[in-house]
Amino acid sequence: MKLPVLGVESSGLLVQGFKAAGIPCGIKKGNKKDLALIYTETPAVIAGVFTKNKVKAAPIIVEIERIKGGECSAIIINSGNANACTGKRGIKDARNMANLAAKVLGTKNDNVMVASTGVVGEPIPMDKIERAVPHLAKGLSPVGWFEAAEAIMTTDTFPKLAMEEGRVGGRPVRIVGIAKGAGMISPDMATMLAFVVTDAVMDRRTLQVLLRRAVNRSFNRITVDGDESTNDMVLMLANGLAGNKSFKTQDSIFKTFQGMLDRLCLKLAHMIVKDGEGATKFLEIRVKGGRTESDAIKAARSVANSLLVKTAFFGEDLNWGRIMVALGSSGVDLDANKVNINLGKLPIVRGGVATGGEKVAKRYMKERDIEVTIDLKMGDKSAVIWTTDLSCDYVKINANKYSR
Amino acid sequence: MKLPVLGVESSGLLVQGFKAAGIPCGIKKGNKKDLALIYTETPAVIAGVFTKNKVKAAPIIVEIERIKGGECSAIIINSGNANACTGKRGIKDARNMANLAAKVLGTKNDNVMVASTGVVGEPIPMDKIERAVPHLAKGLSPVGWFEAAEAIMTTDTFPKLAMEEGRVGGRPVRIVGIAKGAGMISPDMATMLAFVVTDAVMDRRTLQVLLRRAVNRSFNRITVDGDESTNDMVLMLANGLAGNKSFKTQDSIFKTFQGMLDRLCLKLAHMIVKDGEGATKFLEIRVKGGRTESDAIKAARSVANSLLVKTAFFGEDLNWGRIMVALGSSGVDLDANKVNINLGKLPIVRGGVATGGEKVAKRYMKERDIEVTIDLKMGDKSAVIWTTDLSCDYVKINANKYSR
Repeated sequence: MKLPVLGVESSGLLVQGFKAAGIPCGIKKGNKKDLALIYTETPAVIAGVFTKNKVKAAPIIVEIERIKGGECSAIIINSGNANACTGKRGIKDARNMANLAAKVLGTKNDNVMVASTGVVGEPIPMDKIERAVPHLAKGLSPVGWFEAAEAIMTTDTFPKLAMEEGRVGGRPVRIVGIAKGAGMISPDMATMLAFVVTDAVMDRRTLQVLLRRAVNRSFNRITVDGDESTNDMVLMLANGLAGNKSFKTQDSIFKTFQGMLDRLCLKLAHMIVKDGEGATKFLEIRVKGGRTESDAIKAARSVANSLLVKTAFFGEDLNWGRIMVALGSSGVDLDANKVNINLGKLPIVRGGVATGGEKVAKRYMKERDIEVTIDLKMGDKSAVIWTTDLSCDYVKINANKYSR
Repeated sequence: MKLPVLGVESSGLLVQGFKAAGIPCGIKKGNKKDLALIYTETPAVIAGVFTKNKVKAAPIIVEIERIKGGECSAIIINSGNANACTGKRGIKDARNMANLAAKVLGTKNDNVMVASTGVVGEPIPMDKIERAVPHLAKGLSPVGWFEAAEAIMTTDTFPKLAMEEGRVGGRPVRIVGIAKGAGMISPDMATMLAFVVTDAVMDRRTLQVLLRRAVNRSFNRITVDGDESTNDMVLMLANGLAGNKSFKTQDSIFKTFQGMLDRLCLKLAHMIVKDGEGATKFLEIRVKGGRTESDAIKAARSVANSLLVKTAFFGEDLNWGRIMVALGSSGVDLDANKVNINLGKLPIVRGGVATGGEKVAKRYMKERDIEVTIDLKMGDKSAVIWTTDLSCDYVKINANKYSR
């Protein structure tokens, strides 16, 4: 599913003190960009959220160590090779990759983070990266975000970037984010990378709380194929150049900034779903009336991950029984005779049985963006999960070697 | 995936006292068989295992009630309509369907069980069933199992039946089973029906223990698409005409009979996987070295259900990194640096990294039956899950209305 050109002017992509770049270094075939760099001369505070997969790629292991320092000047990212399942050599390579950037930029090794995405199980071609890093650093520019977003793509069909601005603590503040991800997307951030920078002033603890909450409301609410990756991470840097009054979680400014960050992360998360491998539909699964929020999330995820639901939407055939099946097997508290389902505004199921509205729904099923609302009538908790349909193209994309 | 003609002669399909039949009654289009009957003049003891889906089809609700009586003379089954999500009317229809059979056969209503499979959410056409039941009963025959197996098919491409015989308690004993299922197959028996009959003598409690164990080792170890259905059930009848010495769980005869029943259920379960919608591969995922059996099962299921693993096998491309990803996200206790993976007998991964054996594996990947062995090296518990690849045809089959 192609997205129209993003409504972001490159001049709007400036965040004070931050620069970015993206170039080809030869990991991907066909001279495609595959190496990105994000840099701030004024060291930033850093927060991160990482994959829960027990098989962690080398850069994740290095990052979890380095992030403890709490400060960051640069992030170097390659695509085409995940540096995952590469043993001790992989860890050495990941450190080395970050240190190469540190050397060229003249910063401390521990202040440079590293990320990789692509094929699992093959050693990363360090010679190519070593040769490219000086050129990469030379290419750094305050408006280099589009190139950086391109350089972190794997099966993505378009680069993903977003910006938010607003007044925070009396000063104009900006946030810019880039992300990648198109398949292996699941709750808990599978196969996705996102890098978010802001010029706002804040302490490290507050930044971590902000990022964790935003991730839970965005990247953790999308699913393409239910698979979780070894390489997922979201990193966020705040270099403080906006000069706003600093704030803590209890301040009213916190809410303002959280709102901005939530919107930015949700924009990026929706782009990832819209770029879902082979996707022809963007599905919003809303569950209300859950006994608990966790029940509402589980029920929505079960529907979103059901292959039968996904293929039904691909076929533009509302087989609502499959939604009932997915709800019933989600493990949440429900009574089949209470369930209501709407497709858009059309009532399809009332009290667990068909309304006969299925025929009217045929036209709506042809839309690209589809909203399913399920009311469990067990309580007052709700949740939304965004997902795609499952098409023949998904199978074709994933039945071949790709991502390089 | 077409299976060669089953090696079961129809003369071998006799179990003393049991008769079966299958005819078309008009629910499915094109004069396809869609109504089946199993009958024993000597009432049998009965055991059953039912779906865990919280949305239960009407026949399941009726069955859970009727099975309490512990005795059964007949089972009537239709395909093409699941009688699920049909509210109170559905329950009335299910009872009525069983009672129609009871009337024609001259047995007690409570001694007749009912099962349905097919489209969810549409009322069952009772007029067609009512007209057909007398003809169905007339068609009953000791060798009618093949027809009955045909009449319970939905998207199945071949009827599934199996037989076992052996000496139990000094007498020759036989077991015959029929099953249906091709998609929506998951651990815990989704969208499948199986009916097993034996002439062995045993009490009801022993029969229930035998059936529960056999189901856990067979139908609960297969997965096609991870979806669970509203209609699954396995029913087993024992009419005692073999005249063997009765037995309890502690007797050595129990083990003999359990072995026979396990083999029969495993044969049927493998047929269901081999008939998986659009399947081109039969995958055996063996996990050993688990800290617990539950860990081994979870790890194997996570690999078997991963869309990325399934599509990789469809593409005949051993992307073993996807197996590592699926293991890591399974939630079980593991250390990526300890994992060994074999493809057939070929070592592919040792200590979490590639052996370089991937190239040799290319030829093996072209086989239809593929065995993956994963050693977690965390303990001594093991488990096997059987599954299929995921093909374009799976998507096509499920993107259209079917099952009638």
